Amino acid sequence: MDIPVIRNILEANDRISEQIRNMLLQMKILSLNLMSSPGSGKTTLLERTLTDLKEEFTMAVIEGDVMTSNDARRVAATGAQAIQINTDGGCHLDSSMVLQACNQLNLDTTDILFVENVGNLVCPAEFEVGEDYKITILSVAEGDDKPEKYPLMFAESEVMILNKIDLLPYVDFSLERATRFAKQLNNNIKVFPLSARTGEGMDPWYDWLRKEVIAKKNK
Amino acid sequence: MDIPVIRNILEANDRISEQIRNMLLQMKILSLNLMSSPGSGKTTLLERTLTDLKEEFTMAVIEGDVMTSNDARRVAATGAQAIQINTDGGCHLDSSMVLQACNQLNLDTTDILFVENVGNLVCPAEFEVGEDYKITILSVAEGDDKPEKYPLMFAESEVMILNKIDLLPYVDFSLERATRFAKQLNNNIKVFPLSARTGEGMDPWYDWLRKEVIAKKNK
Repeated sequence: MDIPVIRNILEANDRISEQIRNMLLQMKILSLNLMSSPGSGKTTLLERTLTDLKEEFTMAVIEGDVMTSNDARRVAATGAQAIQINTDGGCHLDSSMVLQACNQLNLDTTDILFVENVGNLVCPAEFEVGEDYKITILSVAEGDDKPEKYPLMFAESEVMILNKIDLLPYVDFSLERATRFAKQLNNNIKVFPLSARTGEGMDPWYDWLRKEVIAKKNK
Repeated sequence: MDIPVIRNILEANDRISEQIRNMLLQMKILSLNLMSSPGSGKTTLLERTLTDLKEEFTMAVIEGDVMTSNDARRVAATGAQAIQINTDGGCHLDSSMVLQACNQLNLDTTDILFVENVGNLVCPAEFEVGEDYKITILSVAEGDDKPEKYPLMFAESEVMILNKIDLLPYVDFSLERATRFAKQLNNNIKVFPLSARTGEGMDPWYDWLRKEVIAKKNK
């Protein structure tokens, strides 16, 4: 009984996701869906990225949260255009929410649209939101076994960011082991170990963004 | 269209949950539903608790995971009876899964049944699994704003465990602020700051378990 309903929801979601993707392709905007557990540092990563690259790119952010607009306020403080979606208990963003948010942003000169999903390592992976790429952030405080235990998100992501490497001396986490688990699921995944808090290791992430912005402009 | 379907699912879940609750009441087994983000330390908390209290209580564990039976193996290594539920992508345990698991365990002499839910700070809070109490674990590496941002789980929990206090010197986390946010949602919530890794602060948690086991025997 439930399965057809769920399939219809996913199909409806995919249709709107394609609509967003086509719109952003025409506008040459790189669109990234940032996903992770709660507290892995998505918003801190965005704050630093938006600050460090503000002279190079025009960036906009759609913030997804169960409750509060704290995160949109944090990223707007960098000067970037930001809008908050509250899911009111919902465990993921869907494409209709993101389409509504896109329609309320002025994306005319935007180079990169970041979508920060609800903190959840399971459900958001099932719902496309018009993104070019999914990015999964894993904090080293969460344990290096997470790609093996929550495989879908890592299997679908173009990039895995291993955040909070400043905590490596104090936790049991092997960058090699986390990378190996992720590559077993997805051999092409790019892995960027960094600390959004201290700024260590941000450059390979920024270089990847630069390359992908150019690739999108040439599409 | 979707809302009635979802309501039916929740009602069916609640009926089976009541069935489990009645069964465990007759057997005088204290039942605890452990919930948290991925990587907050649920399994490590269980490993230490099962080891430290093994002479006092008979304990059994139902492990919920999206994939792998790593966690059931870890807790079984303490000598406790353990069974693994794989949700195969599902983002929470439901009561029918837990009922099936109960039926495969020998609970005759059990004092405490721990249910370790799927790592997810959103969805598991909506699904009762026959528990006496919900316990939310929050690692200090996740940030003290989590009760405010993911309120339902904290609002419904009898206990909030603030885990990984050994990391407090290295992260921006205020025990006072996390406690204040949680008490705004749920004034009676008990808060136990501890480190399941180092063992610091475990005693108040053990005292609470002792008190609740006795209360359940006298029901």
